[in-house]
Order: sequence, then structure tokens, then C-alpha cells
Amino acid sequence: MPKAIKKLAVLTSGGDSPGMNAAIRSVVRTCAYHEIECIGVHQGYQGLIEGDFKPMDARSVRGIINKGGTILKSARSKEFRTVEGRKKAFQQVIDANIEALVVIGGDGSFTGALIFNQEFNFPVMGIPGTIDNDIYGTSHTLGFDTALNTVVDAIDKIRDTASSHNRLFFIEVMGRDVGHIALNVGIAGGAEEILIPEEDLGLDRLVESLNRSRNSGKSSSIVVVAEGDKIGKNIFELKDYVDENLEGYDVRVSVLGHMQRGGAPSCFDRVLASRMGVKAVESLLEGETNYMVGLLNNKMELTPLDKAIKGKSKINLELLRVSDIMST
Amino acid sequence: MPKAIKKLAVLTSGGDSPGMNAAIRSVVRTCAYHEIECIGVHQGYQGLIEGDFKPMDARSVRGIINKGGTILKSARSKEFRTVEGRKKAFQQVIDANIEALVVIGGDGSFTGALIFNQEFNFPVMGIPGTIDNDIYGTSHTLGFDTALNTVVDAIDKIRDTASSHNRLFFIEVMGRDVGHIALNVGIAGGAEEILIPEEDLGLDRLVESLNRSRNSGKSSSIVVVAEGDKIGKNIFELKDYVDENLEGYDVRVSVLGHMQRGGAPSCFDRVLASRMGVKAVESLLEGETNYMVGLLNNKMELTPLDKAIKGKSKINLELLRVSDIMST
Amino acid sequence: MPKAIKKLAVLTSGGDSPGMNAAIRSVVRTCAYHEIECIGVHQGYQGLIEGDFKPMDARSVRGIINKGGTILKSARSKEFRTVEGRKKAFQQVIDANIEALVVIGGDGSFTGALIFNQEFNFPVMGIPGTIDNDIYGTSHTLGFDTALNTVVDAIDKIRDTASSHNRLFFIEVMGRDVGHIALNVGIAGGAEEILIPEEDLGLDRLVESLNRSRNSGKSSSIVVVAEGDKIGKNIFELKDYVDENLEGYDVRVSVLGHMQRGGAPSCFDRVLASRMGVKAVESLLEGETNYMVGLLNNKMELTPLDKAIKGKSKINLELLRVSDIMST
Amino acid sequence: MPKAIKKLAVLTSGGDSPGMNAAIRSVVRTCAYHEIECIGVHQGYQGLIEGDFKPMDARSVRGIINKGGTILKSARSKEFRTVEGRKKAFQQVIDANIEALVVIGGDGSFTGALIFNQEFNFPVMGIPGTIDNDIYGTSHTLGFDTALNTVVDAIDKIRDTASSHNRLFFIEVMGRDVGHIALNVGIAGGAEEILIPEEDLGLDRLVESLNRSRNSGKSSSIVVVAEGDKIGKNIFELKDYVDENLEGYDVRVSVLGHMQRGGAPSCFDRVLASRMGVKAVESLLEGETNYMVGLLNNKMELTPLDKAIKGKSKINLELLRVSDIMST
Repeated sequence: MPKAIKKLAVLTSGGDSPGMNAAIRSVVRTCAYHEIECIGVHQGYQGLIEGDFKPMDARSVRGIINKGGTILKSARSKEFRTVEGRKKAFQQVIDANIEALVVIGGDGSFTGALIFNQEFNFPVMGIPGTIDNDIYGTSHTLGFDTALNTVVDAIDKIRDTASSHNRLFFIEVMGRDVGHIALNVGIAGGAEEILIPEEDLGLDRLVESLNRSRNSGKSSSIVVVAEGDKIGKNIFELKDYVDENLEGYDVRVSVLGHMQRGGAPSCFDRVLASRMGVKAVESLLEGETNYMVGLLNNKMELTPLDKAIKGKSKINLELLRVSDIMST
Repeated sequence: MPKAIKKLAVLTSGGDSPGMNAAIRSVVRTCAYHEIECIGVHQGYQGLIEGDFKPMDARSVRGIINKGGTILKSARSKEFRTVEGRKKAFQQVIDANIEALVVIGGDGSFTGALIFNQEFNFPVMGIPGTIDNDIYGTSHTLGFDTALNTVVDAIDKIRDTASSHNRLFFIEVMGRDVGHIALNVGIAGGAEEILIPEEDLGLDRLVESLNRSRNSGKSSSIVVVAEGDKIGKNIFELKDYVDENLEGYDVRVSVLGHMQRGGAPSCFDRVLASRMGVKAVESLLEGETNYMVGLLNNKMELTPLDKAIKGKSKINLELLRVSDIMST
Repeated sequence: MPKAIKKLAVLTSGGDSPGMNAAIRSVVRTCAYHEIECIGVHQGYQGLIEGDFKPMDARSVRGIINKGGTILKSARSKEFRTVEGRKKAFQQVIDANIEALVVIGGDGSFTGALIFNQEFNFPVMGIPGTIDNDIYGTSHTLGFDTALNTVVDAIDKIRDTASSHNRLFFIEVMGRDVGHIALNVGIAGGAEEILIPEEDLGLDRLVESLNRSRNSGKSSSIVVVAEGDKIGKNIFELKDYVDENLEGYDVRVSVLGHMQRGGAPSCFDRVLASRMGVKAVESLLEGETNYMVGLLNNKMELTPLDKAIKGKSKINLELLRVSDIMST
Repeated sequence: MPKAIKKLAVLTSGGDSPGMNAAIRSVVRTCAYHEIECIGVHQGYQGLIEGDFKPMDARSVRGIINKGGTILKSARSKEFRTVEGRKKAFQQVIDANIEALVVIGGDGSFTGALIFNQEFNFPVMGIPGTIDNDIYGTSHTLGFDTALNTVVDAIDKIRDTASSHNRLFFIEVMGRDVGHIALNVGIAGGAEEILIPEEDLGLDRLVESLNRSRNSGKSSSIVVVAEGDKIGKNIFELKDYVDENLEGYDVRVSVLGHMQRGGAPSCFDRVLASRMGVKAVESLLEGETNYMVGLLNNKMELTPLDKAIKGKSKINLELLRVSDIMST
């Protein structure tokens, strides 16, 4: 393989997700395999500006494949949103002889990478790391699969207590703009209804549906609600509305919160991270830039960063239908 | 063993906890072992009033030892708080030839059992089933150990994201009146501070302590808060106060909620449930009544129900000190 | 949707896998949704011969989506391999007015279904349920994803002790004919080497590779071995050979065994099972027969049963390369 | 508190167990709290001989409370069994101004500590770290509770497949000399029989018992076997014998192996480790030596090392009886 570069850097940015460490490890080991240098940038873009760099060799990433979070840490950087900030960052990478940058993060992080490339013609490559699966150009983002298992495990626990007490639970899961998590865990958790940002079921139909299921003999129920659902209420208002308009259930709320972001990555996420790291580094070595690596039809593929940012990750309508049938 | 009775009933009451099913199984199998009949009462005391009874043999409890919740279900019964309600219940047990009752639940449930005994001279025996460990006469209530592991697992996940982002997390765990859960998971989760109902740390000292730990080089922190902590604020107000009065952290809140009550019971809770079921049934067979079975110094012991109800389950002061030292 | 049939049956056959119960639930609820009858056949093909049938409605599959194993049980049937056995089975389905059969299992089970169709022109549809992922026509079989997580969790635990003692562990995982499990868990578990049926690394190269990694500073190592690896030794002989020919490690063996087949299915497997059940029933309703439902490019697709049986599920060569790079 | 010493060292020795890292952390932080120096010794007694020392402060043990294994590593040392070896070790500690030693390990490790004390009058304190719970003077050794949960989780998974196929499983768990693990997991896993080193059930009675349970309608069974059971056969011979002498079951074996030693420690083990570390350091500071810290009746207590070594950890006979009743 021809090597367009001799030294690259890797950073994590935005919300962390399980698998980021496995991706860092893969980037570092792929560099070692191709005998090029690898620099870890701490604290995301802010670390790029401040030159918070650390050389990483194959041994330095030992024992992290199964750790949640990111050893490089992540931080928001207001400064990187300014031209001055990015100029400082560029000077830092030049001073350190860094020739390319792998950015592990979500679409905000990719936007930063793209601007950095446009301003300084600096090679960049993105790896989609976020539990929300809201990025175009990959069927799975890093951490999505792990988060699904974390949430389903929590729903299983809540169901134990729900069915012991004839309760109706509203469970809020992550997903401000897309319903991927809600849709999958709703099916897997045996939810009666799933409320997602892409659809507005309407309060009346929700109550009607819960009423119907109550009458069909279900003594407890779970409704999974994505943070960004469109029903026009927050989850506590939703509970109050249903409490007033539905008989026969004791209604409760559970907001799963930040535990969804952590934990040892699943096998799927570890393998995906390993593949993405290899693809990202080797694409840069081959002279590519401004792409995101992704999983499409079980293969590693490149998608232009601007498409990844602007494109929309659509929910699978088949799953909506499966959910309806399952709550028969 | 002389058998004072030939048929007994078992019910679960109050909030459910992991291990209740294992206790039901143990009661049923101990009856089978001693060749006496066992009746499962559904829906707690309400089922007692309504005669919602089902004979249970050794096979009927197969496959439930590892299930959270309670197959007998639990429910609050306003009717059982009235003399009329309890008279109906007594008539039901008489009609069904039931001669004794095992009640699995917390102190509210035991109060019901005690009154039932006092009014009708009916033999009762309590098994302490609650995750809060707030009952006098046993070092561990059923479900406490499982809940600890569930909470610690969640804290581990939250720590992944906390330490990736230099965040301070307030994590609310169950415990309205006692701090057992908070104290144990705080130590096990490596919490900076633990806020419990038994102690009022004071807001100033909390901020001061967090500030000190920030200055000592900790880039992220966890504060575990029991529901019933005495600091005089709910957890969101607490967050706001700290946000305003402490620099250098991004402060977040996570309320763990009802998932703490569910899940497959730990080995400890399954063994404890099995022991308690045997002790409860055999004590009734030996003619005992009005006791709660409990674990004291690793042995099964009986405590009078009135003591179990009125007594106070105190936190271990040694643990408070250990927590202080660990957050050095 | 036109309904070619009014009553169908479902059975599980061959080795069980996590997700089978979720698939049964999906078949039953899809029938309920389309208002056709559904019969559960116990004990696989043997139950078909003996008429071990039980009508199932939507409520009868409540609470099983998260259970490992199969509530319909599975059994090998020598009798079904004879014409006489299959004639009895056909008579049973005729007598019970069953018009189609969903078979959840592996390729042996599908062969039975295909012969049954050929002999009696009876509509059959297959759902691939096996942890080995060794079936052509689907990127994932039911249970594969769950088994991967179970194995990786075990490897993580073994690594704790391996790295505390400078040990080399040979870990045997399932996979008699294909290396899918070994390859994925090997990457995810950070294995030094992965031995699979598709490749013969050779003993000398294995020792050489382990020696190299020892010299590069690794103080402990994991080698993942598929049951059917081609290195020509069983895992204990392999250990002995390496023990004699490699210095500096204390060598141990762990055979993970049957725990790989059990456990609560992952979110992925629950969703996959739900989708497959819907597709299987609706395909039969549309008059299709002799197909297996599968996941191809994230969509539900039909593959002719004979192709599914004869075709070969190939390992992803990209993963082999990723594994090499990761063990740098 | 008067401080008899200004600098102490800590090492882990023997087989590792979950909670050792939490104990190291506690020793280090208790030293920091009392403002004395703490040295970590790598590789157990061998590291003591070689002077493989590393100063540890409160921050150096951050993030290890939830990690299995031991960051100080453990190793067997033949040299330490010789007078010459121990003289070297003593010279090393003198040269490094170390005034006392905390040893985390099992009875072999304690024997080493005791001899070291006797020869050089050097203060030593033991913390019982082993999953086997085979040490006198503590109701629980570090790692025992975690191992129980790991094993029970594996048994639950095996039961899924056992009950799907009408199988009888022999499951081997750790415990060469004592049956604590087998007895507890046997009850918690719903085992039909439990074979432990303390009892010889006899092959005939085993077969008879399994036969009886088969006839009583159980379609699958689990027998838990401790490594050191006294039935006079290894587990594979046992399987063969039962296969020949019992009808109606497909008999299988699963040897759980080294995964029992690893994994994130349970809440119980983390709290226990934290308490033990505090007690060990503070006892040394108070001038005590030659003791093991232990948990007795939920309190931290000291037991002379020679008693801890010679004493016998007895199984709880009540549990044997509970097991019998549960398998009714």
C-alpha cells in the first residue's frame, strides 16, 4: 500500500458512545501495522487547539477494547467554531508534523472536520460514534447496538415490577431527532406503543390503544417514548394526561438517562469499531479525504462527509409495522 | 416434626423485590416436603378478601427462582385496612381450610398480618421482601443485594460517560427513610459524596467537598443521593444549586427509578429466599406465630413481628467512615 | 392480504438458540393479527408425528420474548426420517386442519421440512434459528448475536485472570463447520490468534506468532479456537503442544460449552425474531412455500429452502484481515 | 491515631479474585488518608524479592474498583519458599524503608507472610482474597460473592438449553477442598443434586435420586459438581456412569473453568474490599501484626494468621438441608 502520510492523529468529539475506545485502539494498531506514527488528541477539538497530544503505540491501547467512554476524552470547543481557533489548531498539527486527522463522533464533529479540511486542505476522515444511529451513510453507528442492549435490559427489569403490580410504564429513551433506539427497544421490550419523533400518534389514539389492550386482558403495559417524540408533551405531562383519561392502570414514568451512553461495548460494536478504524486509516493512506466510513450491506463503505452530515438516517418502516403486529 | 397445620397460604404484598418468587418457591416446596397443602393467594391482601386462591404443588413453581417480580402479584388493598375487609378475608381462609399465612413483604404488610392475627388469632409468619433493607431483625431483606448490583452496574455505566466529559453526576437511588442502598452503592461506585436520610451534610459542605476533590485532580465525580436525603432539596434543585456554586464541572442528574426493583435475583438473594421460605413454613409447623424470619449473623432467626415493625434498621456507621476514607 | 390458509402450526427443531421464543411469539401474534389460528407443536418433528399440539393465542406467548430456549421444546426424531414417520405426521396435520408449517431451526430441520413438502405438497416456511450462523441466505441466524455477546463476556472475564498471571489461554467456542463465532469474538475479545475450520494456520506458525507477541511485550494472550478448527488436534493436545514449544507462558484451556446456547436474547435477536416471524407467516398467507426467511442487507428476504441447505455461509475475509491487524 | 509506621507495601498473591483491585485501592487510599506512604509490589512475593516496587497515591488507583484481576499482578514464587529468597526480600523492604506489608491472597500467601514475620519480625497483615471462601476467620472471602453470581448466571443459561431438550447437565464449578461455591450455586441454580468434597453421596444414591426426580415429572435436571467432590470419579466418568445407568435423559457435561475467577466485582465484594483495606492498614498503624482481617457477623474482625491458615472453613449444614428440601 502506498502511504500518502507518515503521521496521523485521532480524536473523539461530541457525546461519547460505547465502542469509541475500540475505534481508537483500531486506529492506533492500524497505524502500527502500517508503520506510521499515531498521535492521540485529548479533549476533542479543544485539545487540537491546545496541542494536547500524546504519541500512541500498539501497547498503549491494550485493555481498552471492552471499556465504555473514551480514553481520549471528549469536550465541546467554542473556540474551534471560530476561524482563529481553527488557525491555532492547524498550526499545532503542522508543528507536530501531523498529516491527517481521524475524527470519531457525530454530525457536529464531522462538520468541524469538514470546515477544517476546507480551510486548510487538511486530510480528514470520520468514524460515526454516537448511540443515536442518526447518521446517514451507515446502517449502524458505533454504540447503537450496545445502547439497545442496555435499554432492553432496563426495560426487562421494569417489566418485572410492572407486571407484578398491574402498572403502565412510560419509559423515556434517548433519541432527540430520530426514533431508532425507541423503535428497536420497543419491539424487543414488548412495548404496547412506541412514540417517536418521526410520527405523531396523537394523545387520543394513544389512550384508545392502551384502553383496547387493557380490555384484551393485558394487566400491565410498557410505552417507550423517544426524547424527541412529537406528541407535544413531556413525559411527565404525558403520564398525567393518561392517568386522567385511562382507568385500570397505576401509571408510572422512568427516564433512563445517561446510563444509556456507557457500558462495555457489545461484540457487534467492538467488531464494527475495529473494522471502521482499519478502513479510516487505510483510506487516508490511500489519499482519500473528507469521507466517513460506514457499514452498508455488511461492508465497509465511504460516504462523503457532506452527505453524511446533510443526509437523513431514516427509520425502517417495516419495523413500525412489526411493532403494530406484535402488540396485537 | 409435629405438624400444627395441614394447609397454609402464601401471599406477596407491598412493593415487589427480586427474590420474592424464589421465596414463594421455597414456601411451596417446603410444604410439599412436609406433605402439607399450599395455597397461593393472588394480589396480596385484596386476593385474600376475594378468595383469589390457587393450590400450588412443587412443579407449579418450576422455573421461577431466577425471575424478578412476583408470580402471585402484589396490590395495595384499602379494604383490608377495614375490619369488614379483614372479616371477609378471615371467612375466605376458613372456607378454604387454610390454617396459617406466610406474608412476603415490608413493614406495612407485616402490620396487616399482625392485626389479622390479633383479631382472629390466625397464625402468621413474615418474610422480609423489599429492596430497601429497612426492616429490623434481619441484616438483609430479600432483594437488597440484587438492587445493589443493579444500581452499581448503572453507576459504572454513568461513570464511563462522566469521566469522558469531566462531568459531575447526581444519581438518585431508592431509599426514602434509610440510606442502606445509597451507602453501599456509593462506596462500590466510587462516589465522591453520599447523601442519605440519616445525615444532613449541608449544601455548603457538599460544595466545599466537591471543590476540594476537583482541586485534587479529579476530573469527574459521582454523588449518590438517596430519595429521602435530608439536604432539603429535590435532586434537580440540588443540581441547580451546585451548578451555580461550583466551577469546572458540567453537572447532570440521573434518577435510576423503578429498574432498581426488577431483574433476576442475585445468588445471595436466591439462597436467602430459599432459607427464609423453609424457616417460615417450619416455624408455623412448629406452632410459632407472629414472627418474621430474618438473617442474623448468617443464621435464620425469628423476630417478633411487632419488633420488626417498630424497630429501626440502622445504617452501619463504619461504612460512613469507609466512604470518607475512600473519597480521599 | 388474501389468505391462502386459515390455520398454521409452528415448531422448533435441532439445537435451541436464543430468540426462538421471540420467533414463536411473533408467529403466534402475526396469526392473531391476521385472524388465523395458530398451533404450537411440542418436541419438534416428533411432536408432529404424535400430534402433540396446542392452540396458541396472542396472550399465550406473553412474557417469553426475553427467555432463552424454546417453550415448544426441541427434540431429535429418528421416526421423522422414515417415510412411515412422515406419513403419520401428515395424517396428524390433516386431522387437525393445519394447512401450513413454520419450522424454526437449522439446516437439518429445513431438510425435514423440504422432504415433508415434497412428499405431501404441504406448505412449509423456515426461520433460521441457530447460534452458529452457518446458514446460507441470511446474514444473521437467530441467536448468533446473543451468543457472540455471551462468549465475549466470558472472554473478558478470562482475560482478567490471564493478565493477572501472565497466562496464555486457549478458549474453545462453538462452530463445528464454520468460524463465524470464533472470528467475531476473537476480534472483540482481543485475541492474539483465531483458529477456525476454514483455515489451517499450522502449529509452527501458531507458536511462532505467539512467540513474536510474547517478545513484543504482551504478558498474556488469548487464542480463540472454534470446535471444528483444522489444526488437527483437540484443544487439550493443542495446549500440550504449545506448552512444550513456547516459553514464558503458563498455558491454560477453557471450553465454554453449552452456556453459549442460552440466555436472554439480545435486542438484535429479539427484533430479528419478530421480523422473521411476521415475514414467515405472511409469506405463507400469500401462498409462498419452501422458502427460508432471512436478513439480507437489512431487509427480510426469501431464499429457497434447497439453496439455504446446500449453500455455504462464508466467513467475511475482511474480518480475518482486521484480526491480523488488531493483533499487531 | 498513633502511627506505628510511615510506609507500607501491598501485594497480591496466589490465584486472583474479583475485588483484589478494590482492596488495593482501599489500602492505598487509607494510607493517603493517614498520610503515610504506600508502595505497590508487582508479581507477588517474587516482586518483593526483586524489588519490583512502585509508589502509589490516591489518584493511581482511580478507576480500578470495578475491574477484575489485580493491577499488581500475581505470581507463584519458588524462591520465596527458600530462606535465601526471603532474605533478599527482607533486604529489599529495608532498603526501601518499608515498615509493614499487606498481603492479599489465600492461605498459601498467608503462610508466606507468617514465615516472613517470624524470620524478620516484620509486621504483616492479611486480606483474604480467593473465590473459594475456604479461609477460616471470615464469613466471606473477597471474590466469593462475585463468583457465585458468575456461576449462577452460567447455570441459568445452561438451564435454558437443558429444559428445551430434556437434558441432564453435570456442571463443574470451582472448589477443590470445600463446597461453598457448589452448595450456594446449587441452591440458587435450582440443582437437583449438589456434589461437594465434604460429602460422598455415592453413585447409586445419585442415580436413584435422579431417577426419582425423573419419575416425578422433571424433564431436565442440573447436577452441580465441585472440582474436589468425593464421589470418586472425574466429571466425565461420572457422566458416563449416569448415562449407562439412567434412562430418559440426554446427559451432558459443562466445566465452567477460569471465567469463574474474573469479572467486575459485585457490590458486596467492592464494599467488603473497601472495608478490609481500611481495617488492614489501620490495624498495622495501631501496631498489630500477624492477623488476617475478616468479616464476622457483619463486622470487621482480626483473626491470628496461624488460626486462619490452620482453621477450617466449614460449610453451612443448614444449606445442605435447604438444598434437599428445594429439590423436592
